[in-house]
Amino acid sequence: MAILLTGNLDAEDYADWRRHLLAHLPAGETLVLATEDYDPEAVEIALVANPPHGTVARHPNLRFIQSLWAGVDKLLSDPTLPRHLPIARLIDPSMTQAMVECALAAVMLLHRQLPAYAAQQARGEWRQLAQPLTAQRPVGVLGLGELGSAVARTLAGLGFPVSGWSRSPRAVAGVNCLSGADGMRTLLEGAEILVNLVPLTPDTEGLLCRATFERMPRGAGLVNLARGGHLVEADLLAALDSGRIGHAVLDVFRQEPLPAGHPFWHNPRITVLPHVAAYSEPSTAARIALENVAAFRAGRTPDALVDPGRGY
Amino acid sequence: MAILLTGNLDAEDYADWRRHLLAHLPAGETLVLATEDYDPEAVEIALVANPPHGTVARHPNLRFIQSLWAGVDKLLSDPTLPRHLPIARLIDPSMTQAMVECALAAVMLLHRQLPAYAAQQARGEWRQLAQPLTAQRPVGVLGLGELGSAVARTLAGLGFPVSGWSRSPRAVAGVNCLSGADGMRTLLEGAEILVNLVPLTPDTEGLLCRATFERMPRGAGLVNLARGGHLVEADLLAALDSGRIGHAVLDVFRQEPLPAGHPFWHNPRITVLPHVAAYSEPSTAARIALENVAAFRAGRTPDALVDPGRGY
Repeated sequence: MAILLTGNLDAEDYADWRRHLLAHLPAGETLVLATEDYDPEAVEIALVANPPHGTVARHPNLRFIQSLWAGVDKLLSDPTLPRHLPIARLIDPSMTQAMVECALAAVMLLHRQLPAYAAQQARGEWRQLAQPLTAQRPVGVLGLGELGSAVARTLAGLGFPVSGWSRSPRAVAGVNCLSGADGMRTLLEGAEILVNLVPLTPDTEGLLCRATFERMPRGAGLVNLARGGHLVEADLLAALDSGRIGHAVLDVFRQEPLPAGHPFWHNPRITVLPHVAAYSEPSTAARIALENVAAFRAGRTPDALVDPGRGY
Repeated sequence: MAILLTGNLDAEDYADWRRHLLAHLPAGETLVLATEDYDPEAVEIALVANPPHGTVARHPNLRFIQSLWAGVDKLLSDPTLPRHLPIARLIDPSMTQAMVECALAAVMLLHRQLPAYAAQQARGEWRQLAQPLTAQRPVGVLGLGELGSAVARTLAGLGFPVSGWSRSPRAVAGVNCLSGADGMRTLLEGAEILVNLVPLTPDTEGLLCRATFERMPRGAGLVNLARGGHLVEADLLAALDSGRIGHAVLDVFRQEPLPAGHPFWHNPRITVLPHVAAYSEPSTAARIALENVAAFRAGRTPDALVDPGRGY
């Protein structure tokens, strides 16, 4: 019986994952790649990196799916996915750290008004803007899972007053933790900078929309590091035009790569990042994924199992 | 006898300082402003914010000078300045915090390659760049005084391996502290991002020059938050052209405001900030300055006395 590696990967990515997986493969396990000839009936475990819809269902003897990504929204949107199989997300401390660093860069960019100064520089204008300290700049973090809570803790450690929102109540030291609809309203009303890190589910699709922007302080900054599906693109463009939102840093988009000619590319109030906040790094993720496989093989509960009802 | 407020201030600044100084003025003290009619012989103490050369020397009974700025290089460059007078710099925790926040924004901008992504965005190019974590990005901080040591500690707390350089040996927890010419060489050779926070003195004038850039790793980032006089402008332009320096964030310039037509304005590898890293805030600085005056009046040693031999 075999472990299959399958995903939306190019040849170089496949080779990189293969090398790191082989270095940590437990004795007695066999690794096959979706790009090779193999017997689908022999596959018991799938390591998946956003494979095309229909891929997983082709393996009748599959018993466990380990995602190589933190987000499983694309996997769960596959209508052919066998719903009885246990699925684990990947929780990689290196990826969490990368997300924290990207969020920090985006928040500091907005906090210190670097886009406004870049616009002044383009005009050759020397003008000093009033500058609050972090202690005077409330930040809201949507999502207090592995990634959101790490981001919220780091921002709080730098002096920002941080509120965090999660679907069900959570506690994060140093963070004003809110939940539910009332909690969301309170968070939005205070957030001069909003960082989105909720999982994409039917409930959170389109969360970053006009109604959300209208609750936020005028001129607030927006940072979307989660999924493009959270954002209603037309509503953001309108909110930037009206000054309701001052600037947005976007790492994720409904269509990736962001299509040529998309209005986000040339909007001076949008910073476009090409989905670079946090990659799965084979050098660290291969070991973590295979440790979870070993836990499954040994009859233990794997880490970070997805709750299909919640959608993450 | 009176306390004089004098500086390179506009009417609004004078009014703001006056209001905050009066709120903290000890009983029995009189405050006069350089913009008012007053008797120069009555002035015993001067609160100075970069006054024009020659100003201080017009007060024959002056006994103590309290700067309202952290840097005293312009004051000390006044050839008419009476050399026997004690001079104190201003150390304001709010200003230190502002400097830390600006340095952090600049370092995160460079660490996360935001200028490169901005250039890609302008071209409509979607391309992911290799991204190290902070732990893989050595940073060098020049200057381990009040400001430099606070910046170095904060960066180290975020996982950057930080080396710091000072004229005489210092110890800062979590920071690899170096000094002297050998220490400078070691720091430069490792610094993928270099943050300058040394005082401007005849020894440090032109420190950021070709010889310095050539010791740094190719493509390194430069952040100058100290003084324009530290930078040899033509050497930076050449280093950016050759790729020796990848990007520079500059908050200070030899001539401020940066003159129209200066090549820094339109160089895509330079981020121009209009001297906004850290202002003296009258709301916090007035109290601190007057507490130092009270210490002098009471015969105690004021904080942060300048050593004229060192130049800071």
